[in-house]
Amino acid sequence: MGINYFRNDGRDTRFVLLEHLDIEKILSYDAYKDFGTDDFRMIIEEVLKLCKEELGPTLQDGDQQGCIYEDGVVKAPESFHKCWKVMAENGWIALDNSPEYGGQGLPFALSSLLGGLFVGANLSFMMYVGLTTGNARLIESFGTEEDKALFLEKMYTGVWSGTMCLTEPDAGSDVGALLTKAVPDPDSDDPRIYKIEGTKRFISCGEHNLTDNIVHLLLARIEGAPAGTKGISLFVVPKIWVNPDGSLGEPNDVFCNNIEHKMGIKGSSTATLNFGENGQCRGILLGEPNTGMAKMFQSMNEARLGCCAQALGLASSAYDFARQYAKERVQSPPFTNRDAGSVPIIQHEDVRRMLMNLKAGTEGIRAMLGKIMYYLDMAEHDPEEGARKEAHHLVDLLTPIAKAYSSDLGYELIRDAIQILAGVGYCSEFPVEQYARDEKIVSIYEGTNYIQALDLVGRKLAMEGGKVFQNWIEGVMKFAQKNSQDADFASDIKLLLDAARATGDYSLQFIQYFKDGKLAMIPLNATRFLECCAEVFMGMLLIEQGMIARGKLKETGAESADGMFYRGKIETAHYFCRNMLTKVFSRHMSLRQNDTSAIDIPEEAF
Amino acid sequence: MGINYFRNDGRDTRFVLLEHLDIEKILSYDAYKDFGTDDFRMIIEEVLKLCKEELGPTLQDGDQQGCIYEDGVVKAPESFHKCWKVMAENGWIALDNSPEYGGQGLPFALSSLLGGLFVGANLSFMMYVGLTTGNARLIESFGTEEDKALFLEKMYTGVWSGTMCLTEPDAGSDVGALLTKAVPDPDSDDPRIYKIEGTKRFISCGEHNLTDNIVHLLLARIEGAPAGTKGISLFVVPKIWVNPDGSLGEPNDVFCNNIEHKMGIKGSSTATLNFGENGQCRGILLGEPNTGMAKMFQSMNEARLGCCAQALGLASSAYDFARQYAKERVQSPPFTNRDAGSVPIIQHEDVRRMLMNLKAGTEGIRAMLGKIMYYLDMAEHDPEEGARKEAHHLVDLLTPIAKAYSSDLGYELIRDAIQILAGVGYCSEFPVEQYARDEKIVSIYEGTNYIQALDLVGRKLAMEGGKVFQNWIEGVMKFAQKNSQDADFASDIKLLLDAARATGDYSLQFIQYFKDGKLAMIPLNATRFLECCAEVFMGMLLIEQGMIARGKLKETGAESADGMFYRGKIETAHYFCRNMLTKVFSRHMSLRQNDTSAIDIPEEAF
Repeated sequence: MGINYFRNDGRDTRFVLLEHLDIEKILSYDAYKDFGTDDFRMIIEEVLKLCKEELGPTLQDGDQQGCIYEDGVVKAPESFHKCWKVMAENGWIALDNSPEYGGQGLPFALSSLLGGLFVGANLSFMMYVGLTTGNARLIESFGTEEDKALFLEKMYTGVWSGTMCLTEPDAGSDVGALLTKAVPDPDSDDPRIYKIEGTKRFISCGEHNLTDNIVHLLLARIEGAPAGTKGISLFVVPKIWVNPDGSLGEPNDVFCNNIEHKMGIKGSSTATLNFGENGQCRGILLGEPNTGMAKMFQSMNEARLGCCAQALGLASSAYDFARQYAKERVQSPPFTNRDAGSVPIIQHEDVRRMLMNLKAGTEGIRAMLGKIMYYLDMAEHDPEEGARKEAHHLVDLLTPIAKAYSSDLGYELIRDAIQILAGVGYCSEFPVEQYARDEKIVSIYEGTNYIQALDLVGRKLAMEGGKVFQNWIEGVMKFAQKNSQDADFASDIKLLLDAARATGDYSLQFIQYFKDGKLAMIPLNATRFLECCAEVFMGMLLIEQGMIARGKLKETGAESADGMFYRGKIETAHYFCRNMLTKVFSRHMSLRQNDTSAIDIPEEAF
Repeated sequence: MGINYFRNDGRDTRFVLLEHLDIEKILSYDAYKDFGTDDFRMIIEEVLKLCKEELGPTLQDGDQQGCIYEDGVVKAPESFHKCWKVMAENGWIALDNSPEYGGQGLPFALSSLLGGLFVGANLSFMMYVGLTTGNARLIESFGTEEDKALFLEKMYTGVWSGTMCLTEPDAGSDVGALLTKAVPDPDSDDPRIYKIEGTKRFISCGEHNLTDNIVHLLLARIEGAPAGTKGISLFVVPKIWVNPDGSLGEPNDVFCNNIEHKMGIKGSSTATLNFGENGQCRGILLGEPNTGMAKMFQSMNEARLGCCAQALGLASSAYDFARQYAKERVQSPPFTNRDAGSVPIIQHEDVRRMLMNLKAGTEGIRAMLGKIMYYLDMAEHDPEEGARKEAHHLVDLLTPIAKAYSSDLGYELIRDAIQILAGVGYCSEFPVEQYARDEKIVSIYEGTNYIQALDLVGRKLAMEGGKVFQNWIEGVMKFAQKNSQDADFASDIKLLLDAARATGDYSLQFIQYFKDGKLAMIPLNATRFLECCAEVFMGMLLIEQGMIARGKLKETGAESADGMFYRGKIETAHYFCRNMLTKVFSRHMSLRQNDTSAIDIPEEAF
């Protein structure tokens, strides 16, 4: 066990959940009516304790020891074993999953923020947890009663773990190109049992020794099924076959061929798995044949929101470390007072600028994640069908935005944290450079960020004839117009309104490109448009938070801990709008150039 | 020896040197009159060969083996030894140094671009080279004839190596706070010999086994000297004392206490050195007492331009790898032709967008570096005093811009290269993720990027009463106005003119802040201003290159290799102006907000 560097104090998590979101509405839903806000406060405290005492001290172990591969066997970092045991025994694996099968049944708005804390303590370790619950939730959604009885409790309570086996050596972003095949098992009476054969690559937590069994969920094509994504089926493929009574049977002909050496998340194994090398690999068909891709999308969407939590957790931990370092490290006088002698570097103007990037960026991501997960709670539990539908649409629209933007911004923010620590930030003694390395994967997996941008402009913009996006952006504009005369935030709101208009204009431009047959302009501008949407969303949420903080400040002493926090919230809203939201205008100006140079350039010129 | 992944074809290097810069002018200088353009072509080819055959194949060794510390001794990666030998024996250590002492005496415009190639093959290794020549050049500038005779040839020919010992555990950015002290050596008749005592940290190549001796240049305070930077002197402190006849004497009481574990450049040792633990460390005073800081600045300025070459080299290698990968990797149809089946991913619009970022970014940095080094050649060798002075001012103005902007942009560009490779980019099999890790240090050492921004706004803007900056930015505007009706680049030039005006306005705003006593606004906006200057500079240079390419294209078949290259140049100018230069406008809008939130926020709110 190493040193804990996780320093999150939970204050902004409580603010988002209990002061910004409409927590009373969530608590009014049947599924959550047994909880109260005090429970949530207590749970947050427990999680922070667990992060500091158990997960945090294993962060550097994971990086330094990594996973060790030998003859098909993978050893996870030594100290991860105790972490897993503590998490499993105390019910922390399955936060928002059915209590019926051993989950805690927490609202998504809370569980996602807790997820952000956990991954902020140790992302590599939490990979094992996230894959397990993501997998089990699919079995819960699409499995038979027998499947559920066999697998769910074992997974939600951490006795077994899980994976998602999508990618193959020649089928990454193009899932439909997969070659893994399934044929009905001639030796089985059960028509749901298939023989599986194929190779999967980049399988997170694909092999390890934290649990006795690993339940793979695998995409394969049943022999004779259509080509492409329409012919893909989903199978449950346990590493060790599970007998009908739940006991472990024979090994299931799944062999780990190697693990990757990576830039980061070294404590999480990334495996190449050979299924059925000896013709003995069996899988259980989940749901109907050829419906695997649609099912997997449920899990992908969850995982994409999980990516936002990951980006949040790592950037937030980098911020927490950098701000404490900046308060302790004494060097040089500030620019504005050259005679001050050496001061803590937090008094240096440029350090404050970078800390504000980190603060506004992480709090913006947290606000965004909290809000989307609040919509997800509504989508699942609101008694009104219309409200559920509307919330569901918002989740669909905002998921790619949250995934891609937060993972790109997170990497950028951690760079600022390294820069604040300077030489020390580049060294491995402190974990800041590790956060950068761990974070980089988030823009790649669960659909690269470009795939998110395409999902947004190719699919989500068109939902309900464009109404979903239009209502959303108009909602932002209405908020801005309603508050345009605000005594404290008028200038920020002016920027927000202009940015929302530019973003709306951007979306119309896409339609125009479609009409004009200038199709190439759409993917060329998709990422930038996504970034504009994210910044407008975060701008609105941070102004809302600033307004709430202003109200609360009146009831609090300005010098109290809460008072300081609220004053910080107000400045954060100003900072974000005036320094980060402004990027929208450059992107919009770029859009107006209708530039096709990236297409016009001959391939040979690269 | 590992695999070579260095793939630079030298085409853009030749373009900058021989087609963009006024190479005839450089060749007219006395110092360079023995060279011809054919020599330069041949030298570039030789360097590319060396990079591919010797340096490139050691890149991953350096990262994977790193440096090994044991009881004060540091072993450099095994394969670095042969590299050093080849470089030394063939005269590649000292490219632009005096032929009198074993250097090649090449123009800076060429040597800097060659440096970019070398570091693009293996930055860790080139650290040993760069420190050696940087150190020796200071001895050449400020040493006695005796010093020069003792050290220069040995260092320029790679028999010995060198370091720069500035930083201490509590004196990083604040060099003036150093504690290392020097007292006249009571046992020596030579008044230039001092006893040295102190600890230096983060000393690049501070200890290693590539050479028999390491010549440290060290900053220390002579007992009784003034506090701060005014009381700092510069000493030559060899690891092994050098006898008057040039032979090696006794070890000089310099002990390597440990080396750092780092994010990258792992093949380059980063040492903590204890000088005079046993009271037996001797140093030779270089020049007058208390003039060390000014002398060190000569070296720092060179090193800062070297940082630009480093950022260029790594980003360029990442681009070279990514573009080749994108041509070979086949997956999915492009957005604009969903029926195309799987295509090489270079046909995917978003991949092209990212490749254009890499191309325009690296070529912009290369153009900037080449131009500044061309000014440096003028500053040193132009027969006209006025021309020398003007060129010298431009070098001074542009050095912090080149250092900070290129290192920040380089990190961002390499991120795009990782993203193009996606999962594979995150793995260590290919070197792209290593480029990111190696590159991150460049924004930190040789003065953090914030120190560069302060140097620009606090010192360089005010040079000659502001005239240097004013002339420079007016030069850009005149270029834009003169070409405003250009048939191909008018819209790009419009953007350049607007961006230059915004940047000029930015500089006036700083003066206003000074006048209004709003001092905090200056450091808060310094980094952004620096970025605007860099983008305006790069924008102009890339348009110039586009215009040159247009002219040459008329003489070349459009489908020939050169024709493709020139067509690429034209598109690159468009791309940069329309997609990257536009960032200036967001920064300018942020400036206009006069935002003080980063200062107003109470420290406790962080």
